Amino acid sequence: MSNKRAVILLSGGLDSATVLASARAEGYDCYTISFDYGQRHRSELEASQRVSKTLGAIEHKVIGINLDGMGGSALTDSSLVVPETASHGEIPITYVPARNTVFLSLALGWAEVLQAYDIFIGVNDVDYSGYPDCRMEFIQAFERVANLATREGVEGRKFRIQAPLQSMSKAAIIRLGTQLDVDYALTVSCYQADNQGLACGVCESCQLRKQGFLNADINDPTRYF
Amino acid sequence: MSNKRAVILLSGGLDSATVLASARAEGYDCYTISFDYGQRHRSELEASQRVSKTLGAIEHKVIGINLDGMGGSALTDSSLVVPETASHGEIPITYVPARNTVFLSLALGWAEVLQAYDIFIGVNDVDYSGYPDCRMEFIQAFERVANLATREGVEGRKFRIQAPLQSMSKAAIIRLGTQLDVDYALTVSCYQADNQGLACGVCESCQLRKQGFLNADINDPTRYF
Repeated sequence: MSNKRAVILLSGGLDSATVLASARAEGYDCYTISFDYGQRHRSELEASQRVSKTLGAIEHKVIGINLDGMGGSALTDSSLVVPETASHGEIPITYVPARNTVFLSLALGWAEVLQAYDIFIGVNDVDYSGYPDCRMEFIQAFERVANLATREGVEGRKFRIQAPLQSMSKAAIIRLGTQLDVDYALTVSCYQADNQGLACGVCESCQLRKQGFLNADINDPTRYF
Repeated sequence: MSNKRAVILLSGGLDSATVLASARAEGYDCYTISFDYGQRHRSELEASQRVSKTLGAIEHKVIGINLDGMGGSALTDSSLVVPETASHGEIPITYVPARNTVFLSLALGWAEVLQAYDIFIGVNDVDYSGYPDCRMEFIQAFERVANLATREGVEGRKFRIQAPLQSMSKAAIIRLGTQLDVDYALTVSCYQADNQGLACGVCESCQLRKQGFLNADINDPTRYF
């Protein structure tokens, strides 16, 4: 194998696009993975496809997971309303149960098949929504699971779960991505983006993103409806 | 909530049926979860449905996961041959990458929604196939992830991953299940069972099961083709 390989969790949002650009800049051959779990904001899957292609991933895989009737989140349950106010300290209703655990598990399976020993995830615990599975302690615990769960981790090389944005502010992430030529107009962060990927501008995710561009003093290319 | 709730990973095989019977005997309200991940032995999903109903689960959920093209295992990739010889010490080709990690993650998501704090899995590291994600060390590491990953684990009650069969021989499992009135004729363990759930009798899983009934001195009700 010529180059080192990495699997990148790609949501179609601003953070994971920056992670992909950053892994590419570090010389990884990148395999991107996204998840179709019945999210209401379908346009993020289209965004992940665009971002993946534009930023030079070798392959983009969309894994379908049928969570029908599992419930528990405003992001998959259309009977719940996406809130417009930021949650301070509390875990918000947009939390999807065990989401990053499920996503990392599937990324791990693919990584093992690909012999990719680095898995990148764009979690961040500075400008974030308070999801417990975005914290460093969780990432480290999952890395331990990865190396106990797999044939490779036990017999061969160790996996690393890389979370390069972990302690960066949203403004710092946007500055990094801008240096790496990420076109943020391709990304969708909004929890209730429309079919064209236009953003609401009022949900918590939109607010964090807007404020990030303001703080970074970089023009916000997001298309709002 | 009157009774304590548990989520039980149910494969349709002998071990997980015994786990379900055991959790019921301990007084849990049981919610069973199975996975349709494109496995070649489809009859195990039908077996999980029968077992779930017969042993009094409250609800049985089948989660579809589309692993198309991820490759890596003889259980999902029809171009690979299921071996007839037991693997000694080595991790066999029937290993599905990160399988128990993926299954436990999805079970955790459902458990959080149900407020079920006990997740039961029928792993065993005595008469087993050498999969790394069947060992106690893995189960303990995943329990740690569960309690860092979730709103409940962080803010509320702790999750427990229970593996009651961990250190039991196959014969001891069969004796336990027989005491609990498990009808093993309903279960399918074979890696290449046919559409009617008839077993090959020669794959490693069949061999372990056959030997278990012999060692337990209990009549083997398995239907072979």
